[in-house]
Amino acid sequence: MNYAQTDQNKLKRGRKKASYDKDVINSILDSNELCTIAFNIAGKAYVQPINYGRSGNRLYLHGSVKNRMTTALIESAEVCLSVIHLDAMKLTRSAYNHSVNYRSVVVFGKVRELTEKKDKLIGLKSIINHFVADRWEHCREPDDKELKVTRVLEITIESASAKIADNPPEDKKEDYELDFWSGTLPIRTVCDYPIADKNLKDGIKIPDHIIDFYEKRKNGF
Amino acid sequence: MNYAQTDQNKLKRGRKKASYDKDVINSILDSNELCTIAFNIAGKAYVQPINYGRSGNRLYLHGSVKNRMTTALIESAEVCLSVIHLDAMKLTRSAYNHSVNYRSVVVFGKVRELTEKKDKLIGLKSIINHFVADRWEHCREPDDKELKVTRVLEITIESASAKIADNPPEDKKEDYELDFWSGTLPIRTVCDYPIADKNLKDGIKIPDHIIDFYEKRKNGF
Repeated sequence: MNYAQTDQNKLKRGRKKASYDKDVINSILDSNELCTIAFNIAGKAYVQPINYGRSGNRLYLHGSVKNRMTTALIESAEVCLSVIHLDAMKLTRSAYNHSVNYRSVVVFGKVRELTEKKDKLIGLKSIINHFVADRWEHCREPDDKELKVTRVLEITIESASAKIADNPPEDKKEDYELDFWSGTLPIRTVCDYPIADKNLKDGIKIPDHIIDFYEKRKNGF
Repeated sequence: MNYAQTDQNKLKRGRKKASYDKDVINSILDSNELCTIAFNIAGKAYVQPINYGRSGNRLYLHGSVKNRMTTALIESAEVCLSVIHLDAMKLTRSAYNHSVNYRSVVVFGKVRELTEKKDKLIGLKSIINHFVADRWEHCREPDDKELKVTRVLEITIESASAKIADNPPEDKKEDYELDFWSGTLPIRTVCDYPIADKNLKDGIKIPDHIIDFYEKRKNGF
């Protein structure tokens, strides 16, 4: 299932790498921890990185009730955000053709603040389980005091696009005669073995959901 | 030397982690490959990830002359961009206190398009050498045709702030009695051994600047 191509999400450059497929887009959203949000304050565009959750075509963000980004997003009622995962650096004989392999997504969505307790918990559960799958069942849920100082935003994805580059370096034909090295520097983001908190209560073993996360990401994701 | 704290760059939340020190900010800018840019089109805030270079208090971006982001930045003559490097995920007994260790920077700057050949080459050299140190000396410089279709922007950093979190997970006192696991999942971004292009000319050995990059980043950066 594809997102419709509109003026907003249609990629003008590098169209060969573009995808509007929801599964492709969701898979990139699900394998990243952080997104970067654009927001306007007094007509100026700002950026801020933040973690998020996804359930279906909805994303969730959270922040303090005093946070200026969430305030700006609630006011504008819409958002553009991006995620990117760097997979390789590609070095060519020409400076011009240097590039990277990556998986990125840009999302355009409508923003709504969740104010009911049950809705806020749905959003926060999505964020915590995006952080580490199944984590929500293995920690204490937010209490009323914590919920009161936490703003939860729901983003309904209206359009989105993915860009994926996964190919070797490429030079203009005549440049292959040059005496420069060309190649790929593979980049991986890996998780190392979990380190238990030094104040861990006696007898608490490392749970399966943590080992699962580590096993899934120890060689990169 | 610190950037002055202004309404724009002063961190309202998490002040304990804030730094305005130019060396700290430059070191984070130098150890990241990609930044994310905010820009406005018709009053809406957009984001786009892109690579960059840094020389002193100047950053350089490049893009196609048709690129809508560079067009928007030239029009607004100012920019906000961010970089972030994820170092660890911190899991606490309470959902509320889950967080990450990271090194991030937000930059506010003035934007100027470079139009003279010698200035464009200075910007592109900075971008290529940010990509991999000393690379510019080991590839073909852009020719006039390539320069003509490439826009180069110079950003003069006016203010900036860094946020660094590098500490263990922390719960409220009463939560330490809960029977949940808490700990840190260390995250590293590593470079694997360089892969030579399959069309590499006979006799070209892997150069020192590539080995240096690999050695510096093979265990994470």
